[in-house]
Amino acid sequence: MPRFRHHVFICENRRPEDDPRGSCGAKGSAAIREAFKAELKKRNLKGVVRANAAGCLDACAHGPSVVVYPEGVWYGGVTPADVPEIVESHLVGGRPVERLLVREFAAHSRVLSPREKAPTD
Amino acid sequence: MPRFRHHVFICENRRPEDDPRGSCGAKGSAAIREAFKAELKKRNLKGVVRANAAGCLDACAHGPSVVVYPEGVWYGGVTPADVPEIVESHLVGGRPVERLLVREFAAHSRVLSPREKAPTD
Repeated sequence: MPRFRHHVFICENRRPEDDPRGSCGAKGSAAIREAFKAELKKRNLKGVVRANAAGCLDACAHGPSVVVYPEGVWYGGVTPADVPEIVESHLVGGRPVERLLVREFAAHSRVLSPREKAPTD
Repeated sequence: MPRFRHHVFICENRRPEDDPRGSCGAKGSAAIREAFKAELKKRNLKGVVRANAAGCLDACAHGPSVVVYPEGVWYGGVTPADVPEIVESHLVGGRPVERLLVREFAAHSRVLSPREKAPTD
């Protein structure tokens, strides 16, 4: 086993209120990490999957941003309400939550779905 | 290309001075991240390899702790002086720095081949 089956990093970077870029921390990302911790504990995944605070993940435009390793799946616009679905579908079931993927970072990730490969019309 | 070829997380968790567990932040990990940033910039790897602050990585006994994804290689007892070697050997050359590995986390980590590190699409 690797150290963690999945290592989930939640951006908690906080910029000054008047910074035009905004920041994940100011959008409530601490509550997202708390939701992950609670959900993982409920499913007895503590020590297997880790929800980790991170500084700026350089995905500010998509915030609050979350990246899951080792697979390198990026989620954007995540809310605490999305967390049970991410845990159930992705971290337990191995199926990333399509509607939350940051599409521009997903082009070559290992979990690419057929839908993402389809030409746009 | 994935979002980052390597995503390096440096634990910057800081506990109160009297906490017996100590903390990576109190052991000077902010300077480790600065060293990574400087070295990556020097090698024109900004945007390709990211040095990221992280909260507690749950590897306190080995701190200052650093984990590199997607390969899940863990380093412990890292100092700023070690950073050029990590960049040169591991992040550029694909050979993790043996003497800094956290052995108990290393059993099944996967090191990318040069081909995997540089997709040609």
